Amino acid sequence: MNEVNGKFISIQGERFYEIANYDRMQPFFISLASDTDLWMYLASTGGLTCGRRSPEESLFPYYTDDKITEGYVFTGPHTRIMANGEMAKGDWIPFSKEQQPVYKISRKIAKSTVGNQIVFCEENHTLGLRFSYLWAPAGKHGWVRRATLENLGDKDLDICLTDMLRNVLPAGVERKTQNEFSTLVDGYKKTELVPGTSLALFRMEAILVDRAEPSESLTCNTVYALGLPENTDYTQTESKGVRGAFVAKTGFQLSANSHQTWYNVLDVSQDAVAVHALMHFIQQPDAIARIEEAMVQSTETLRRIVAQNDGIQHTGDEANDARHFANVLFNTMRGGYYLTYPPITNANANANANAIRHFYEDLPLTFGRRHGDPSRPWNLFSIRVQDEQGKPVVAYQGNWRDIFQNWEALSYSYPLYINHIIAKFLNATTADGYNPYRISNEGLDYEVIEPENPWSNIGYWGDHQIIYLLRLLEISYKHDPATLHELLNSRQYAFANVPYRLKSYDEIVADPKNSIRFDDEEHRRIQALTPKMGADAKLLLDENGQVRRTTMADKLLITLLTKLSNFIPYAGIWMNTLRPEWNDANNALVGYGASMVTLCYMRRYVAFLQTLLQTDITVGIETERFLHGIHESLRLYETSRQYIDAAGRIGEQYRERVYKGISGLQTKLGMAEVQAFLSDALVRIDESIHANRRKDGLYEAYNLIRFTETDRDLDIEHLYPMLEGQVAVLTSGLLSAEESVQLLDAMRRSELYREDQRSYMLYPNRRRKTFLEMNNLPEEAKHLPEVQQYLGTVLKQDCDGGIHFDARYRNANDLPDELKDLYEQIFHHHAFTGRSGTFYKYEGLGCIYWHMVSKLLLAVGESLSKAIIEQSDHFIIERLRVHYMVIREGIGAHKRPDEYGAFPFDPYSHTPMMAGVQQPGMTGQVKEDIISRWFELGVSVSDGQITFRPTMLRDEDFTDGELSFTYCGTEIIYRQKSKVERQKNASLKVESRKQGLTLSKEDSGHLFARDGKIKQLTIEV
Amino acid sequence: MNEVNGKFISIQGERFYEIANYDRMQPFFISLASDTDLWMYLASTGGLTCGRRSPEESLFPYYTDDKITEGYVFTGPHTRIMANGEMAKGDWIPFSKEQQPVYKISRKIAKSTVGNQIVFCEENHTLGLRFSYLWAPAGKHGWVRRATLENLGDKDLDICLTDMLRNVLPAGVERKTQNEFSTLVDGYKKTELVPGTSLALFRMEAILVDRAEPSESLTCNTVYALGLPENTDYTQTESKGVRGAFVAKTGFQLSANSHQTWYNVLDVSQDAVAVHALMHFIQQPDAIARIEEAMVQSTETLRRIVAQNDGIQHTGDEANDARHFANVLFNTMRGGYYLTYPPITNANANANANAIRHFYEDLPLTFGRRHGDPSRPWNLFSIRVQDEQGKPVVAYQGNWRDIFQNWEALSYSYPLYINHIIAKFLNATTADGYNPYRISNEGLDYEVIEPENPWSNIGYWGDHQIIYLLRLLEISYKHDPATLHELLNSRQYAFANVPYRLKSYDEIVADPKNSIRFDDEEHRRIQALTPKMGADAKLLLDENGQVRRTTMADKLLITLLTKLSNFIPYAGIWMNTLRPEWNDANNALVGYGASMVTLCYMRRYVAFLQTLLQTDITVGIETERFLHGIHESLRLYETSRQYIDAAGRIGEQYRERVYKGISGLQTKLGMAEVQAFLSDALVRIDESIHANRRKDGLYEAYNLIRFTETDRDLDIEHLYPMLEGQVAVLTSGLLSAEESVQLLDAMRRSELYREDQRSYMLYPNRRRKTFLEMNNLPEEAKHLPEVQQYLGTVLKQDCDGGIHFDARYRNANDLPDELKDLYEQIFHHHAFTGRSGTFYKYEGLGCIYWHMVSKLLLAVGESLSKAIIEQSDHFIIERLRVHYMVIREGIGAHKRPDEYGAFPFDPYSHTPMMAGVQQPGMTGQVKEDIISRWFELGVSVSDGQITFRPTMLRDEDFTDGELSFTYCGTEIIYRQKSKVERQKNASLKVESRKQGLTLSKEDSGHLFARDGKIKQLTIEV
Repeated sequence: MNEVNGKFISIQGERFYEIANYDRMQPFFISLASDTDLWMYLASTGGLTCGRRSPEESLFPYYTDDKITEGYVFTGPHTRIMANGEMAKGDWIPFSKEQQPVYKISRKIAKSTVGNQIVFCEENHTLGLRFSYLWAPAGKHGWVRRATLENLGDKDLDICLTDMLRNVLPAGVERKTQNEFSTLVDGYKKTELVPGTSLALFRMEAILVDRAEPSESLTCNTVYALGLPENTDYTQTESKGVRGAFVAKTGFQLSANSHQTWYNVLDVSQDAVAVHALMHFIQQPDAIARIEEAMVQSTETLRRIVAQNDGIQHTGDEANDARHFANVLFNTMRGGYYLTYPPITNANANANANAIRHFYEDLPLTFGRRHGDPSRPWNLFSIRVQDEQGKPVVAYQGNWRDIFQNWEALSYSYPLYINHIIAKFLNATTADGYNPYRISNEGLDYEVIEPENPWSNIGYWGDHQIIYLLRLLEISYKHDPATLHELLNSRQYAFANVPYRLKSYDEIVADPKNSIRFDDEEHRRIQALTPKMGADAKLLLDENGQVRRTTMADKLLITLLTKLSNFIPYAGIWMNTLRPEWNDANNALVGYGASMVTLCYMRRYVAFLQTLLQTDITVGIETERFLHGIHESLRLYETSRQYIDAAGRIGEQYRERVYKGISGLQTKLGMAEVQAFLSDALVRIDESIHANRRKDGLYEAYNLIRFTETDRDLDIEHLYPMLEGQVAVLTSGLLSAEESVQLLDAMRRSELYREDQRSYMLYPNRRRKTFLEMNNLPEEAKHLPEVQQYLGTVLKQDCDGGIHFDARYRNANDLPDELKDLYEQIFHHHAFTGRSGTFYKYEGLGCIYWHMVSKLLLAVGESLSKAIIEQSDHFIIERLRVHYMVIREGIGAHKRPDEYGAFPFDPYSHTPMMAGVQQPGMTGQVKEDIISRWFELGVSVSDGQITFRPTMLRDEDFTDGELSFTYCGTEIIYRQKSKVERQKNASLKVESRKQGLTLSKEDSGHLFARDGKIKQLTIEV
Repeated sequence: MNEVNGKFISIQGERFYEIANYDRMQPFFISLASDTDLWMYLASTGGLTCGRRSPEESLFPYYTDDKITEGYVFTGPHTRIMANGEMAKGDWIPFSKEQQPVYKISRKIAKSTVGNQIVFCEENHTLGLRFSYLWAPAGKHGWVRRATLENLGDKDLDICLTDMLRNVLPAGVERKTQNEFSTLVDGYKKTELVPGTSLALFRMEAILVDRAEPSESLTCNTVYALGLPENTDYTQTESKGVRGAFVAKTGFQLSANSHQTWYNVLDVSQDAVAVHALMHFIQQPDAIARIEEAMVQSTETLRRIVAQNDGIQHTGDEANDARHFANVLFNTMRGGYYLTYPPITNANANANANAIRHFYEDLPLTFGRRHGDPSRPWNLFSIRVQDEQGKPVVAYQGNWRDIFQNWEALSYSYPLYINHIIAKFLNATTADGYNPYRISNEGLDYEVIEPENPWSNIGYWGDHQIIYLLRLLEISYKHDPATLHELLNSRQYAFANVPYRLKSYDEIVADPKNSIRFDDEEHRRIQALTPKMGADAKLLLDENGQVRRTTMADKLLITLLTKLSNFIPYAGIWMNTLRPEWNDANNALVGYGASMVTLCYMRRYVAFLQTLLQTDITVGIETERFLHGIHESLRLYETSRQYIDAAGRIGEQYRERVYKGISGLQTKLGMAEVQAFLSDALVRIDESIHANRRKDGLYEAYNLIRFTETDRDLDIEHLYPMLEGQVAVLTSGLLSAEESVQLLDAMRRSELYREDQRSYMLYPNRRRKTFLEMNNLPEEAKHLPEVQQYLGTVLKQDCDGGIHFDARYRNANDLPDELKDLYEQIFHHHAFTGRSGTFYKYEGLGCIYWHMVSKLLLAVGESLSKAIIEQSDHFIIERLRVHYMVIREGIGAHKRPDEYGAFPFDPYSHTPMMAGVQQPGMTGQVKEDIISRWFELGVSVSDGQITFRPTMLRDEDFTDGELSFTYCGTEIIYRQKSKVERQKNASLKVESRKQGLTLSKEDSGHLFARDGKIKQLTIEV
């Protein structure tokens, strides 16, 4: 009976997932969403932090997840209950760790599927009482805690109650100050009770400032209570110089089978005007009703936002529906939703190329935010979704690596903005073929070197460029190939001006870990221009100070050519831009790593360009020369080093030209020439991918390269297998359905598989040497003269005769040369790939990183889809389908809570060996799962036409023979009957193709435009 | 029976102070000392941090005191005990917060008077068991936890035991990283058990570094257990990716009236060689005996160090003895002790002025350290007392504001270094008359402006200069006036070269908060010289690059003249060097503050110079002009502003000259001229002090000045009374014994007195306005046109009609000019003195700052001493004596633990309103109390002769008619009999003067030289 158990339940009309006996699980971490800027992170222990906008406006201290989890002992809600004065038994303290053995208790936790409410519940079987509290956002009111004490028995009880919120922060405390100087901050704290009310003001007596000047603290965080008996004493709330706490002490009679409910309402940064308003509000007889209404409203608004982005599905599988809702919720929190749709074309725009550029860059997105959470202290979130009047604001920002993937998923629901997103992408790539660090509605950001911050760094993250761009292009092409064709030769795309200067080929070969020069002068020039030009200051300008423009085709080719100029035959794309790829825990690959992952994505990119570029194109004359050079070099491919040298120097020549300033001269490239180039490139890429198939059937993901100076040759060293490499090969389009199955079978047999989680790790878990095993000179080395020479200085001998390097030598850098080989022999630093091999969380040893698993799922889904369309062997299709379903089950919507480690409908970033899922919410996984969901529902688009062909659905996905979801905001109903119904107010032409139903271009267009012409579609399946 | 109770007890031959039922007190914070670099801070809750050397080498996380105090729930020792399998009762968890009501328990805590051991004890009356554990340093072994479980009953018990140390840090984690990124740090953690042993290695799998290169982690923190049964299971200690914990699980039979004792031994940063040595050590059958021996040795060494500095006294009042030991211990931890004594004169030194200078600067001090503790997160301690072989190293460092006061107290026990300390002091004062921020054995440090650190600042802390120097000179003069006279005209003193440039007088008047220019060029020149010249690079050099030298007399006068050039008649010394005085919480006094405190100290300084300068002196020609100028200006004193202008410009002229480079030309100043100047100055100073007597009999401490441009006059505004001002007046020497009593009576009547602590606050506690009371426009202002104009922008109206400044306006800086007066009317920022008025800890509202109370005690002691010598009225003497005793009792050695808030023999920094004493250990208080103790014991020195005249002792200070202490390392025994005994191996001439006994110069010299000639002195009192 004490087993952990999960199920969906209803509370006041909302669906919740409830975990019984969650206290038998390891504590887990949870993110609550809201429709406004209210945020909350909490642990299943009850420890929490919450506030508005950012960690700088917190109601409880914003620490890392480990500290929040354990902090429940002195932070947040704390309730003591005495029933009928049973002094001998002592207070009942729900949710405390040391629950007295005199009380038999059981606990539950429940989170709403909308994702904004959580309930903690403890039943005291000894006393016949149940205590529970719920956290919920309530818009302008702030965070609400609703507590309920129920008398489950048939006797009236006298209750003494102390109900507290501990460690409430005052307004005006910076996160870093609280973290490092909390004892000083405490000295400034004052908690006041507005006389005669329950309204408590949590204040600093002054704002901590660096200068000796007065700094009045004119705002406060506020907490008040509603619903407690009139005799309740709040005076213990008042304090000075110590941590704030809201304390309510009261007593009441609780009749048999009745309950008492009360509320705490918390908000941040309230000024005098707001406090006066609160003083009035809490006197209103309907205050509770209005709080409840705001809670409902808040949920409704959030549900509407998610619904708008196609987050609501009704199937027979509630776990799937809840997970999909959560996926869309977090994708929306990251990428936002459109305030206006479809895009409004400005008639005047046709006249002016810059206006066209601006039109295409316009993305009226709101609700997106900078991400970050307490599990990742190096990322700090920032939410700006409303203005001061509560109106949504257009604002987005994100790392390149994140935001485009969220927009990719969003674009399935709002396809008409896809070419805007592509424009945003292309306008932010540089003339030398890379992309900056971050984009926002205010333009792009690149990283600069901060001398005082040793962790600051510069460089280009190269991996995402190809696959992100490709996926956006594919969406555009599927929905509207004609427009994409038109845009190809439209000269409206800009170049980002990032003041990084890749060095010459020879310099990079000599020191690939030091390949970029930061152009201080250019940086200053850009900064000086910014006040005048705004975001355009970070674009490449022509001699007249106008934004330099080129065609889409030009930009697409530059991206590819840049990668090809760093193509190491049989090894992959050379990672020589100072940044690792997707898994930045493999950061030591930088310099000597070569990425098969990027090569695989290039394979699909080239194949797509073959389809797309069925026309002559216009490009810059620099690009033309670049293409000719690379094309020519490809003939040297067989003798790798000759190709590398030739292509590398051609890349250098191209860069040299564009660093001096693009000429602006354009030229026409004939279709035949482009196609010949693409086809030659594809052959070489495919050869290299094939060559990287391992004996066990897996594929290499990354290789280490070493230039050998003497014979001008190249060594390629293979690393351990990685999940990322398999995903890339499956995605590349190179494998047949059967080959895909073989690869998936090989993966299942390999050490990548983690049985306990039924899923795949990023790489096989490895046992590291113990302290006693490492740092030991081999017996035979002990008598070497260099060992004897350095014994007592660099080397130290222990009492058992073992010899060790002095602990100061953390790597070979400072060692005497004579000892470097010996050190390498012991520590194998050449094969060091980065921190991934030295830690146990995130992308570390033994970890499942769910985003990559979902990429695998999507890749298998794509293979399966292709196999079905191509009518592959039924047996192969079935094996692919089984792989798909097994991977999907591993992801976890249907896992038991104790297997998953949290609410299984909530996406999390990773699962280490020693705990359940970690880092709730904003994982890249949600994007892949949303796209996979369209595949599962059989929704696909091709040549502007939507097809519904659900081959993955099972009977249990239907309730009473029906299943519904929204797609582009239109409700789609699948009915397990043999008739097709049409909506009265819309006329449709449905043509049947294979087993599926395909809408006409016109009807598809109504859906894409979300014009409301088609209200609902019911489809027989 | 549950009352808090304190008493001294013995444990294994060591004296401890034990507090019964300490868990009924508020948690308090404790510092444990050691004879080595081992440090520990812990809370009475059991939460702790400890390690070696600095917070960077911690065994448990180094957080602020609040977090350590509450962290006991998941950090440090945790023990679960099950006796006779009584499952129904549940585990007994000693020291847990939620003690089960099924167990009746009581607790004690005890700290050794040597200050290096602490014992936590909990008795379970239900089970008849007592569990206790002790923390103790054990030298090279590290920290030892010795736990004991006793069966108090007469039945054998079966015990199941789980004993843990939780949250043990791995080696190699930086404090800041742990503080901000603990969740990431956890991911790198690995805890290994050396197979077949209890030795656990707490490691990082890699060191977190900013670069993508391998960083092997080759050290570990270690914990092992000794004394547990052989069947003990330690395997739960092993872990990866989570916090480390040492876990021992075992079971054993505990016979009636027997006990089981076991040990944990913890150390930091052990390399492979050390771990191998440990593996051997723990197998030794006598390992426990050797650990016990090391613990004893560690205590003995620490006792010897403190004994050497005269810390040991045996009187009938053990609380006093313990407090004195603690005072000397902490004074020694700050200031150090001498490795060699007396100073060894280098014969060659006579030839070379620089060599003489170096001889006089030589201070062979060890054991001192940079201070800091978890109560003051802006100070981080650093202990370097031993080299790698465990030998003491000569090293000291400290802020000017701290280290000279510790050396002052030290000098009573080692008087022959006093002129070295004075040389260190004078060589570190600048040519323009100020002192730098910090000194160390490697020279001096000044602060530089760090652009990235908003809290960085520059300036001169002016207050301590006069009084510190004076007290050192007084000691020198008392012990050996002849040598001090000789040194007066010895040209061996240097000038510190601090690249601060005080601006011109007019500039400072115009903007006194911006009075110093940082001379970047000079700073770079100094830095460039440092590699070549070492510490001398920071001294003023002559045109040949040699250190510029002058006489002591010159330096003494410059210091005084500089202050006089900033003398504001009737207001005090103008604080125009960007730094506040002693109480840096009054930091807003900078610029417009004038210090009566410094003026009072100058009063005593001038009087001392009158005594000292009974000779012609040699000074720099710049000083001569400076003196003439100031002397002349004094005639303008009556018309304040004229004096200020004249003296200010003379100061400016002097600075201009020395900033250009001191000429090096010296001249003779006749004694008569100097004395005339001093006496004129004294008259003016005394006038100003008298003028600052308040109606209530107290004296002003600081005044606010405002230059009024129109009439070239000056406004002086008085502030609230401050304890510091009364101490300064009492110390000044101006008051007669009777006047002193009147002032003390006035203080006792004033709001400075805090009844509950029987002591004095820094200033009267003030009630601050509540949130609703502050920031309200007065009714009559609401209709002003400027109010109407800004309503809705700068001003906001609430629903009750109240009008408030928008919360963004934290001070008047950004306000429209029209509203500034209104703002000032509401917020009174002109009278803002600094953060002291806005916080409730440290020097804040309602706080007793014990250092100042002890300064008061010393001042009263001095007055009393003078009154006795001058044979003042008996009644006055008695009233002074009562004041002395009452202040002394307030300080707390005899307070009850719950009144004091901690172990009463431990010095602490301050006592806020809402808690007991705060910030253990290294408070400046200890220095004052050590000096006061000599007064209480009646030991005084004059003209090179020691007098023993104990007038303050009470009968209860004697045990069996005896009382003993050491003075200059010699044991002094006071016997309450009418005979004087002399030691056999020393011949003494003792002459009686008044009631006291005075040693001859020769015998006194033996004591000062600590030459062992006099082993013991027994004196009848």
